[in-house]
Amino acid sequence: MASQQLIDELYDFMYPLAQRAGEILLEGYEEAGKQVNIKTAFYDVVTEYDNKIEEFLIEQILARYPAHKFIGEEDTAKNNHVTKELTDAPTWIIDPIDGTSNFIKQIPHVCISIGLSVKKQIVLGIINNPVQKKMYTVKLGGGAFCNGQPIHVSNVDNMNEANVAYEVSLLHIANLKVRNKHIKRIYHVGSRARRLLAYGCVVDSLCMVAAGNLDAFHIEDMYPWDCAAGYLLIREAGGVVTHPYGGPFDIMKPDLICAGTESLRKELEGQIRKADQAKSVGDDEE
Amino acid sequence: MASQQLIDELYDFMYPLAQRAGEILLEGYEEAGKQVNIKTAFYDVVTEYDNKIEEFLIEQILARYPAHKFIGEEDTAKNNHVTKELTDAPTWIIDPIDGTSNFIKQIPHVCISIGLSVKKQIVLGIINNPVQKKMYTVKLGGGAFCNGQPIHVSNVDNMNEANVAYEVSLLHIANLKVRNKHIKRIYHVGSRARRLLAYGCVVDSLCMVAAGNLDAFHIEDMYPWDCAAGYLLIREAGGVVTHPYGGPFDIMKPDLICAGTESLRKELEGQIRKADQAKSVGDDEE
Repeated sequence: MASQQLIDELYDFMYPLAQRAGEILLEGYEEAGKQVNIKTAFYDVVTEYDNKIEEFLIEQILARYPAHKFIGEEDTAKNNHVTKELTDAPTWIIDPIDGTSNFIKQIPHVCISIGLSVKKQIVLGIINNPVQKKMYTVKLGGGAFCNGQPIHVSNVDNMNEANVAYEVSLLHIANLKVRNKHIKRIYHVGSRARRLLAYGCVVDSLCMVAAGNLDAFHIEDMYPWDCAAGYLLIREAGGVVTHPYGGPFDIMKPDLICAGTESLRKELEGQIRKADQAKSVGDDEE
Repeated sequence: MASQQLIDELYDFMYPLAQRAGEILLEGYEEAGKQVNIKTAFYDVVTEYDNKIEEFLIEQILARYPAHKFIGEEDTAKNNHVTKELTDAPTWIIDPIDGTSNFIKQIPHVCISIGLSVKKQIVLGIINNPVQKKMYTVKLGGGAFCNGQPIHVSNVDNMNEANVAYEVSLLHIANLKVRNKHIKRIYHVGSRARRLLAYGCVVDSLCMVAAGNLDAFHIEDMYPWDCAAGYLLIREAGGVVTHPYGGPFDIMKPDLICAGTESLRKELEGQIRKADQAKSVGDDEE
């Protein structure tokens, strides 16, 4: 495991950079008529600010720590520093803007997510939501914080009382099998939860579970940079994070259920399993 | 129609009251362990702040305008001033807290909505989202504003580029026919829109369409107080509001589609009609 001294040093190094990255984000947030480029599909967009923030962070890190590695969303990292798998080397896992579509539309669910893996273990996370003026911070074994105040998950232990987030927009994926999986899960979870919410920002949804604003969240087909920092934040805030079918969470293939309590997580897992077994939407209700 | 002088007078009277109501809301927002009561179903909740804000507004209005009428969410209005239908009398249509569940969970989509009908026409609206520090204001024929700056709807004219809000939580309604209607609509709209978002606050969703943060929103089975002020705000911001199947919007039975452009509204109406005609979810895709 990484030494506490190393974790503290890298946290103190990164914190002001995450603040500065938030300032860059805010400059773009208020700007009208941002240049928007389409990536892999009509719903997958990027702006110059995504690249600008990633470049800024990587340049600063490499200037000080030339041996560090990166896993990041955009393609700005110098190739010999980009890794596709975790190694023992300190590896920064960065999403420069999660919620790019929110950023474009000035919807305040937009986060910069910075996680650090050392010896294949996530040891610190800093998440900046500058529009909402919330800076989430976490060190392994040191608790979770928002703006320096300790945060805790909620104690809701059943779906009837639960505020659950689900990325309903995943329905726009062209693959009909994936679409079908999601609509069945949305039906099963949505008809049992007190509320189903969709914010279009995985990182902010994780932060909201950690801080108890949400009681649970389920997501699949995401990337390490969406979840690395948020995963540790929830764990250190007292919550549980597993694979959707139970079992350990894998940061490199971060399908997950997270919740404030194991009881709620288990009930949500049960609904997802039932949904996946249903032949068609609602076929357990007839 | 109401005279401009009357509209101006009542706007100037109400504006500081809406500001004060926002301060009361904020006092409760940060308070831990709020008393929460269940109303009609497990997902229908109310706090003492809902009542406190409605009482405050009604007392202030009646002290100055004893002949005015009210249509409101909570039951605090004196009975002889509450009306179930619009008359020629000035009638305040008030939602003291829309997004009560967000209020309880400290999620920043929470609004006080105040509309005024005179001679059966909505002539002014003031919506305060104090957590986000946004005060939306509108007078009939006078344009729409946020914090004093003019706001405009977006010019997105097709679903592929559209950010659409849908209250996915309506799936928790016990009636299976209603549930089935919503899951089919969620599937049809969600698989075609760039994004489907769900904020758990009808009033804020209307404001977000008016300000161009969202491109469209569809909702049914709501009440006049959810929609009166937001309806006028969208109209004056250049947007369109109709019944979900087209035709005029009825504030007393406020089922609606709203959008920045008629072209997008019509495409959304088409998807809703197709969903309603589908026998099961996704049956147009096989």
